[in-house]
Amino acid sequence: MDEAKIRRLLKRIEKGSLSAEEALQNLKNLTYENISRARIDHHRAIRTDIPEVIFAGKKKTSDIVDIAHAMMKQSGKFLITRATEEIFRELGIKKASFHPDSGIISFGTPKKKYGQALVLSAGTSDIPVAEEAALTASFLGSETKCLYDVGVAGLHRLLAHKKTLDSARVVVVVAGMEGALPSLVGGLINKPLIAVPTSVGYGSSFGGITALFAMLNSCVPGIAVMNIDNGFGAGCLAHRINMMGKAK
Amino acid sequence: MDEAKIRRLLKRIEKGSLSAEEALQNLKNLTYENISRARIDHHRAIRTDIPEVIFAGKKKTSDIVDIAHAMMKQSGKFLITRATEEIFRELGIKKASFHPDSGIISFGTPKKKYGQALVLSAGTSDIPVAEEAALTASFLGSETKCLYDVGVAGLHRLLAHKKTLDSARVVVVVAGMEGALPSLVGGLINKPLIAVPTSVGYGSSFGGITALFAMLNSCVPGIAVMNIDNGFGAGCLAHRINMMGKAK
Amino acid sequence: MDEAKIRRLLKRIEKGSLSAEEALQNLKNLTYENISRARIDHHRAIRTDIPEVIFAGKKKTSDIVDIAHAMMKQSGKFLITRATEEIFRELGIKKASFHPDSGIISFGTPKKKYGQALVLSAGTSDIPVAEEAALTASFLGSETKCLYDVGVAGLHRLLAHKKTLDSARVVVVVAGMEGALPSLVGGLINKPLIAVPTSVGYGSSFGGITALFAMLNSCVPGIAVMNIDNGFGAGCLAHRINMMGKAK
Amino acid sequence: MDEAKIRRLLKRIEKGSLSAEEALQNLKNLTYENISRARIDHHRAIRTDIPEVIFAGKKKTSDIVDIAHAMMKQSGKFLITRATEEIFRELGIKKASFHPDSGIISFGTPKKKYGQALVLSAGTSDIPVAEEAALTASFLGSETKCLYDVGVAGLHRLLAHKKTLDSARVVVVVAGMEGALPSLVGGLINKPLIAVPTSVGYGSSFGGITALFAMLNSCVPGIAVMNIDNGFGAGCLAHRINMMGKAK
Amino acid sequence: MDEAKIRRLLKRIEKGSLSAEEALQNLKNLTYENISRARIDHHRAIRTDIPEVIFAGKKKTSDIVDIAHAMMKQSGKFLITRATEEIFRELGIKKASFHPDSGIISFGTPKKKYGQALVLSAGTSDIPVAEEAALTASFLGSETKCLYDVGVAGLHRLLAHKKTLDSARVVVVVAGMEGALPSLVGGLINKPLIAVPTSVGYGSSFGGITALFAMLNSCVPGIAVMNIDNGFGAGCLAHRINMMGKAK
Amino acid sequence: MDEAKIRRLLKRIEKGSLSAEEALQNLKNLTYENISRARIDHHRAIRTDIPEVIFAGKKKTSDIVDIAHAMMKQSGKFLITRATEEIFRELGIKKASFHPDSGIISFGTPKKKYGQALVLSAGTSDIPVAEEAALTASFLGSETKCLYDVGVAGLHRLLAHKKTLDSARVVVVVAGMEGALPSLVGGLINKPLIAVPTSVGYGSSFGGITALFAMLNSCVPGIAVMNIDNGFGAGCLAHRINMMGKAK
Amino acid sequence: MDEAKIRRLLKRIEKGSLSAEEALQNLKNLTYENISRARIDHHRAIRTDIPEVIFAGKKKTSDIVDIAHAMMKQSGKFLITRATEEIFRELGIKKASFHPDSGIISFGTPKKKYGQALVLSAGTSDIPVAEEAALTASFLGSETKCLYDVGVAGLHRLLAHKKTLDSARVVVVVAGMEGALPSLVGGLINKPLIAVPTSVGYGSSFGGITALFAMLNSCVPGIAVMNIDNGFGAGCLAHRINMMGKAK
Amino acid sequence: MDEAKIRRLLKRIEKGSLSAEEALQNLKNLTYENISRARIDHHRAIRTDIPEVIFAGKKKTSDIVDIAHAMMKQSGKFLITRATEEIFRELGIKKASFHPDSGIISFGTPKKKYGQALVLSAGTSDIPVAEEAALTASFLGSETKCLYDVGVAGLHRLLAHKKTLDSARVVVVVAGMEGALPSLVGGLINKPLIAVPTSVGYGSSFGGITALFAMLNSCVPGIAVMNIDNGFGAGCLAHRINMMGKAK
Repeated sequence: MDEAKIRRLLKRIEKGSLSAEEALQNLKNLTYENISRARIDHHRAIRTDIPEVIFAGKKKTSDIVDIAHAMMKQSGKFLITRATEEIFRELGIKKASFHPDSGIISFGTPKKKYGQALVLSAGTSDIPVAEEAALTASFLGSETKCLYDVGVAGLHRLLAHKKTLDSARVVVVVAGMEGALPSLVGGLINKPLIAVPTSVGYGSSFGGITALFAMLNSCVPGIAVMNIDNGFGAGCLAHRINMMGKAK
Repeated sequence: MDEAKIRRLLKRIEKGSLSAEEALQNLKNLTYENISRARIDHHRAIRTDIPEVIFAGKKKTSDIVDIAHAMMKQSGKFLITRATEEIFRELGIKKASFHPDSGIISFGTPKKKYGQALVLSAGTSDIPVAEEAALTASFLGSETKCLYDVGVAGLHRLLAHKKTLDSARVVVVVAGMEGALPSLVGGLINKPLIAVPTSVGYGSSFGGITALFAMLNSCVPGIAVMNIDNGFGAGCLAHRINMMGKAK
Repeated sequence: MDEAKIRRLLKRIEKGSLSAEEALQNLKNLTYENISRARIDHHRAIRTDIPEVIFAGKKKTSDIVDIAHAMMKQSGKFLITRATEEIFRELGIKKASFHPDSGIISFGTPKKKYGQALVLSAGTSDIPVAEEAALTASFLGSETKCLYDVGVAGLHRLLAHKKTLDSARVVVVVAGMEGALPSLVGGLINKPLIAVPTSVGYGSSFGGITALFAMLNSCVPGIAVMNIDNGFGAGCLAHRINMMGKAK
Repeated sequence: MDEAKIRRLLKRIEKGSLSAEEALQNLKNLTYENISRARIDHHRAIRTDIPEVIFAGKKKTSDIVDIAHAMMKQSGKFLITRATEEIFRELGIKKASFHPDSGIISFGTPKKKYGQALVLSAGTSDIPVAEEAALTASFLGSETKCLYDVGVAGLHRLLAHKKTLDSARVVVVVAGMEGALPSLVGGLINKPLIAVPTSVGYGSSFGGITALFAMLNSCVPGIAVMNIDNGFGAGCLAHRINMMGKAK
Repeated sequence: MDEAKIRRLLKRIEKGSLSAEEALQNLKNLTYENISRARIDHHRAIRTDIPEVIFAGKKKTSDIVDIAHAMMKQSGKFLITRATEEIFRELGIKKASFHPDSGIISFGTPKKKYGQALVLSAGTSDIPVAEEAALTASFLGSETKCLYDVGVAGLHRLLAHKKTLDSARVVVVVAGMEGALPSLVGGLINKPLIAVPTSVGYGSSFGGITALFAMLNSCVPGIAVMNIDNGFGAGCLAHRINMMGKAK
Repeated sequence: MDEAKIRRLLKRIEKGSLSAEEALQNLKNLTYENISRARIDHHRAIRTDIPEVIFAGKKKTSDIVDIAHAMMKQSGKFLITRATEEIFRELGIKKASFHPDSGIISFGTPKKKYGQALVLSAGTSDIPVAEEAALTASFLGSETKCLYDVGVAGLHRLLAHKKTLDSARVVVVVAGMEGALPSLVGGLINKPLIAVPTSVGYGSSFGGITALFAMLNSCVPGIAVMNIDNGFGAGCLAHRINMMGKAK
Repeated sequence: MDEAKIRRLLKRIEKGSLSAEEALQNLKNLTYENISRARIDHHRAIRTDIPEVIFAGKKKTSDIVDIAHAMMKQSGKFLITRATEEIFRELGIKKASFHPDSGIISFGTPKKKYGQALVLSAGTSDIPVAEEAALTASFLGSETKCLYDVGVAGLHRLLAHKKTLDSARVVVVVAGMEGALPSLVGGLINKPLIAVPTSVGYGSSFGGITALFAMLNSCVPGIAVMNIDNGFGAGCLAHRINMMGKAK
Repeated sequence: MDEAKIRRLLKRIEKGSLSAEEALQNLKNLTYENISRARIDHHRAIRTDIPEVIFAGKKKTSDIVDIAHAMMKQSGKFLITRATEEIFRELGIKKASFHPDSGIISFGTPKKKYGQALVLSAGTSDIPVAEEAALTASFLGSETKCLYDVGVAGLHRLLAHKKTLDSARVVVVVAGMEGALPSLVGGLINKPLIAVPTSVGYGSSFGGITALFAMLNSCVPGIAVMNIDNGFGAGCLAHRINMMGKAK
């Protein structure tokens, strides 16, 4: 902790062993080095409840394993996204759970969960991204619920769950292809709605671009849009919104 | 009518004033000139009921006026798209009707209309394109009906008109922004559905591209997609489909 | 069938065991749950003749096999698109037919077929998509006919089949590269025309985007455009149009 | 209110003047017409506190004036976005306030405001969009605060307002050009963050596309992204998030 | 003429007033300054017959007038593209001819013309670009012929002119919208074919991009493609090809 | 040969065994069937000297082998593009030659070659496409010459070959990355110039799009542009231009 | 100046009127407010010699005038980019100079200039952007030299100025259309080269995008690329590079 | 060395064995062949200190090995980019060093290094590109320093290294995703800054396009932007800038 460093400096002025003018020069540098560093890290630890998360992506398995073990030791929990079965095997942590569809490995989910984040998927192919969102929010401490395959082509499937929609505090809508579901849901609820386009589709779906732009242009005002396939980001935002007004 | 020309030629062989061999040379050229020309024009006249249509676009007003008068004389009807009030004034044809929103000028609509083409618009800003579709289909001889402002954000507005949807033979859905309405409608009906994206929107709506791609990627199979703002094309297709199985 | 549920409710009012006011509360929920669901499913079954279709895509083989067997049991027919030989083997249904080019597996085609849907392909590389369209329409109950390799560069190949063009009720035109064939065909016929761009080409064909936009911008009005390689969608739309005015 | 209609129907069964079976047929239609309609409108009125908003855009001034007056009569308040001075003059409502930079006209802001939504702008050119967000949230009932011109190129300008950042419940960050500010702010706070790209810039800023994509790809997880220049949408979402856990 | 400069230098060595070594140093520089300059200018003058052409574009009228007069004095001819009536008036050269559709002003066309360049346009809106191509080729010395409005939707119009196609040495095809005409023509002829996409169209024609890509992806091999609306470039290339094997 | 068919028909009128009116009906159909077909095929055979070419692409090896053998039998020559060593082995034709870099297999090149087509490549990575162009032109009967690795970054490499540039009848310039070489060469010569963009490059070269657009926008007027990596098309066009004015 | 604030704080510890611990709390906040602010501003003033520059763009004339006068008072100099004649008139500062082509207004250029920044333009239409670069570098204190219209199509024009190229410390190359000039120049020199694409061109030049991508993909390694038309940025970078190793 | 050739020519005039006029003809050709060639090669060798570099890319391993050995013999050093371990093995040069992350193989780095080029990476995934930049600059003779993982989301990590930033002569900033780091760094320093976008990211990062455009649109003026993943180019430019004002 670098407050110590500043404290020593100030103590020396107090004692008279350093003039105010000399201290001034020192403090200017400290400002950008240690104080800031400490403060911001400290804030992250205390306020966000969001531990560092490992994006497996192109990282080497051995690196991932090392980081995960370090996190487990330090904080008793970790989350790995875009992971593979191989990574899970190499981890060798029996109590961790691996979700093959979404590629999530999690360890140390909080016992008590709060509020309710509802995750909808338009089609069955969108489920991996929806699951990434749900597992992330859950890992961070949100109660989550999922409704899959309630896309716009079969309207009644969604309308049948009106009550579930009404009881959520925040709703994540995951959809590929034409990305129409968020607009439909947004017209039915008055909760914050997070839309996640997926790369599901072919031809002019452009790997999710079409769904992304459809969501950004929704006729329903105030929809929060995420990057393509970014279930993790949706889970983080859903958790933050879900926790508002909750005593943690 | 150029059949006359061929007939004269053949008559001359019949009469012996022209040898078969000489006629052969003539016919090869005629093939590509007059026979084809006549045939196709003839077919167009007899089978499609679609008179030539004037796309005002960047044409000069005087040219438009001339063409329209020529058409009126020849066939007793004409349709001008993307027209302005100025063009209507210059035309000086009192019995023609001008629709300022869609920029349609029409003259000589058929008395008897057939079937039913239903035109829906998602928002009020999509109405000009919807009107272009409806007026075109009507001009060609289809009974048309319109429901405006039944977009996906207010689901109930559409559901309230389930009967109207059921009684149509073909449905045209006009929508801008995220272009979600065709998917919703397509999940409710079993009629041929024509989707027309409009350039309504801003930012990443890209002048209708977002709606266009959303429609092409609809999770409802078999939706016919038109170019952006192409109400005229939608009206033509709707009419053709609407007339199937009808005695004309 | 959920009408039963509503009937029971109404019977209870009739019998006096439930007040109108109490029923009102129940019905509001039912509306969005079971009635809708039943109605729409019911309608789909009765009116569209379009059984659920399995898009194999990235689905697991075992899942596909299960769904197909369930469908076979329930309705005596199924259609799988984008399938592989492996899926066909695992299905173990001898009477099903597998079309390796288009990746279609079908079972239970209707004996009586109606009307005529004509499918054209510009080049030989476009045949798989054309076949997907033709097999889909055929499976749904349309008489289909195919003309392959009649692209715009060899005009005479198309003109030689003018009679076939004239006898169809609806025409599907499948083309990659510059996507010019629909415009050419559209100038020759007066039937509804469905254009399907394919991903055939290289360089600036952009996986079919060039053909798609060419078709959307056709100088022939009223062409219905499908997503890239979407033979299935074209087959569905062709069938719907082909069946218009036919007693089913 | 259409509950009346259903009530009358049920009363008739109760009285025996209508059989359950007959009522069933009626209810199926009602479901999609009036119940839904009433319910959803009712819900909007009671739960969202978001009155209809007028997007002036290309609407005619006379239409806007009519709608605004109707709203004023019905609910005592209205909000017009993308308005001009001319519209304000034509309205002739002295107590309405017009904000020329953002093109907002508002009437009937709630007296009591809740929570705190903080709106930041990267540059001075982004202020109109930021103001649209702030005025919208304020009109809906959120306490709002604004910090303008705190872009990433002059880091200290932002850091100087760390306390303001800490006291907000939700933060809206409006930025054009490279759209970097949301990432910077997102690394400093633990509140829900809404990023709004603006069309400020030239050359390869593509009217805001560059900023939009930068925000969607932020290395800070969980940022909510809006469409380009969509301050209104950001205001709506900010208000919804800000009101969570507040007794209204 | 800068050969003089080199000649003087070499003469001085010949005379002994300059050593070979000193001359070497001079020549190295001359190489990049005057020899090259002279050579290339000279070559252009002698070999290409293509005088400098003035692209009016955003140039000031007074500048254009000055350059044109200078050219007229030096070479007895000039060509201005993208010109306006105002420029023509300011020029004050009665014998120059102004073509308002294509914006071409030309002066001093060669009396004798060679070969034959045929220019086709798909629609009437493509005529200005076609005219730019034809007038350019004509100005450079090519015999030109034009066929307008022979687009792919009315096949017979083109086929009727088979003889004209056959008698040309090079064919320029100008088309907007879906840009299909070059493929059709390319399948009928064995001459070099130059395709010019135009910005005619709307919606997803993207100001000519769709036609451009369609032409680049033609199924007919060996089509030369120009930039959008670049009739001038097409005229230059057509002239160069047309003059091959001709004694000038 | 179908002229026979028409001749028979006309003879019958001559003999009086068919009336002119009856013949008219027959001729209308013949027009679109056999005459056209025969004519165009005939023209292709007699005039173009361009035998059908096999684009191996995604075709099955066995199909390619069959077509090649059929062509060899009929015309004594064939050309296969985008071929692999495996195809060459399966062909089993010893006298055919296989060029692994460009993927060209050719058989039966003409003994006498005409004129001169010069093919330049900017870098060594562009050679496969350049070779495809050169081998195609050579196969069709053009004398070809190649200069590789004369890109714009080392100007002197190109200038050293000024004489070779001057002696060509047509020049093909193949370049990837920024595609600048055609502009440079175009400023030095007065021959028809064909530019071929290649997919060489990375990042924002977009698989050749950058080079393609650079070539379309060249400040040198009259450059013919081909699709990306389309060496075959360039070879065809170069041959056609090269043969102009040559007795074949 | 906020050092004063810190100094007072430290003085109070020195005097004993504040404990070190209390001061620590205060300093943490100051860090982010005033120290940082002062430091960075101070550094900018002392080290960069780059005064604030006014981007006129869409700013109101009155605002621009106020800022310029304030700058003139404080630092004796100012630079306005993208200005108009109207702004110049309203400024009312006779000693300021206005450059109408580039839209630059400058006042207070340094007397002594250093090094040499050379600015090349490919065409005459690129001159405004080139001038913006040159005037910016000059205003900041760099000696600048300009060579205009030395594009790649007339190679000799550039080669004639080899000496000028050799004597520069840094070279800015401004080009539109195909953007080839930087590659050519980059192959001739060994100085840092800054490439600026301009929006000059039409059709597929896409307002400078084509030139931008060509420059990013140059086969010459190490070219610095600017945004489209960003002469100001190029001037700043050229000045920074030009001043390296110079005593200021 | 080809000066010899010219010298001989000039000597012959001096001796009278060649007339000035005859020499003139010879010199015109020499100009474009050997003088230029020799000069430019010579200049590259003497002035730039940048030996030819091998871009392994798709080259064959055997070719790469041959070129590298030739370079080693001629100049005692070589650099290979985008290399693999296999290439390194095949090289068989023990003293060469292979950097697997960046794919760099270098041999013969200069002993004395100059100045200081600082390379920053935003994330750990950007390190390979950053390393390519650092190793290139180092190989060319620049002292280099690296700071990795100092992205904008954890501001303090960067601020902690303010001194390192201040002591560099030129700074390379490598970042993927939203590409925001250059703007942040650019606001803190007054050195030339080179920004390198990387293809790190997913969804709408478009393989680095988003980062590229963000950097081109930075609100900090004068940032030099490289192509995506072009660490090599950044290293070349950084070296050139770093060496300015240094005696070599």
